[in-house]
Amino acid sequence: MKKYTFILAAFMLMGFIGKVKAQTDPAEFTGATAKLKHYDALYILNSADEKKIKGTLRNMDNALEDPRLKGKLHIELIVFGDGVAVYMKSGIYEQTLKDLLAKGVVMAQCSNTVRERKIDKNDLFPFISYVPSGNGEIIIRQYEGWAVVHP
Amino acid sequence: MKKYTFILAAFMLMGFIGKVKAQTDPAEFTGATAKLKHYDALYILNSADEKKIKGTLRNMDNALEDPRLKGKLHIELIVFGDGVAVYMKSGIYEQTLKDLLAKGVVMAQCSNTVRERKIDKNDLFPFISYVPSGNGEIIIRQYEGWAVVHP
Amino acid sequence: MKKYTFILAAFMLMGFIGKVKAQTDPAEFTGATAKLKHYDALYILNSADEKKIKGTLRNMDNALEDPRLKGKLHIELIVFGDGVAVYMKSGIYEQTLKDLLAKGVVMAQCSNTVRERKIDKNDLFPFISYVPSGNGEIIIRQYEGWAVVHP
Repeated sequence: MKKYTFILAAFMLMGFIGKVKAQTDPAEFTGATAKLKHYDALYILNSADEKKIKGTLRNMDNALEDPRLKGKLHIELIVFGDGVAVYMKSGIYEQTLKDLLAKGVVMAQCSNTVRERKIDKNDLFPFISYVPSGNGEIIIRQYEGWAVVHP
Repeated sequence: MKKYTFILAAFMLMGFIGKVKAQTDPAEFTGATAKLKHYDALYILNSADEKKIKGTLRNMDNALEDPRLKGKLHIELIVFGDGVAVYMKSGIYEQTLKDLLAKGVVMAQCSNTVRERKIDKNDLFPFISYVPSGNGEIIIRQYEGWAVVHP
Repeated sequence: MKKYTFILAAFMLMGFIGKVKAQTDPAEFTGATAKLKHYDALYILNSADEKKIKGTLRNMDNALEDPRLKGKLHIELIVFGDGVAVYMKSGIYEQTLKDLLAKGVVMAQCSNTVRERKIDKNDLFPFISYVPSGNGEIIIRQYEGWAVVHP
């Protein structure tokens, strides 16, 4: 009995020392550690601002290339409201989207936005999918355990 | 033993085929599936921008009407910072808020904002509630398993 | 058997009454209740806008001071994109950051941003830490159970 108590105390002390070290030496801090084999993330885009769109697409790529997540991350991009600009054939994002598509990203569009704005689906890229509502997608994915990122 | 290995292999193959199908046929993708009986979502509003306020309230309604969530979704709206404009009696949002209230939405306001900005509570709608801090609400609700949406 | 059924029914009734009360009396609603002993939150900053930066830092302080979370909340601030302005020695945020540092906040910076923008690390505060990508941090922390706040 005494032996186990001692071992337990030793482990607790090690944990304590580790914690103190982490807090006093920020230079050695390298962020969270990815311990799982698979991660799902839903990226949100609801703006037509070029800087915001380019930033979101670049952020998705950065996450896919993060050494902690590389080869383990699946991304879905959910677009609603003004964000629909990113899927317009007349826009400037085709190549970036295709590069992300090649990395397994699923491109989803809110059907409400398309209907409310009377957008012709033929004006949008053929490789996108439609979900009933972007907001419903955000809520359900969180309940499924997905991470959500809205840069 | 062999028999079980075979069954296991068969299942893995089925899973693999299903995955390939999902990835090559985006047109059939209809988004996440709502498998639970109840969902809770916290909507965040911290902007006075009319477009942002109207968009957030419309998004809440879209989520409540999403066929995947209809009748299963409970929403709380947490307002802080500039977002307090939405609750001002002098504003233009009374009817939209009352429509959402009739759908069971709980309207919450950050007490810090009211105190820091010396806002008279009589200038805000009587049907709202007050929480110690909007940010505390966001953190605790996530720990309670709620989905969080900040459009 | 009957006795237990009765007790069960009594408890269900109490729950029902409590729920009705909560929904009809918003004035008494005081928000979520913090039932755990410890909470972790990741705050996101990716904007150089002074109002957004000051608001985010103030929000972090509000969460730390929320009576529901006081003494139980640990915060990490993850900065990427334009948000890097907050860590610039030439900026105006040193004292506010040091106040938060004294409250145990960990300051993290996305390495991609620093590399892509060719920022000299000597121009940033020495008390910050670097993570491979801000977006990877956001995803992994959510999988670790952290709350995420992007004001």
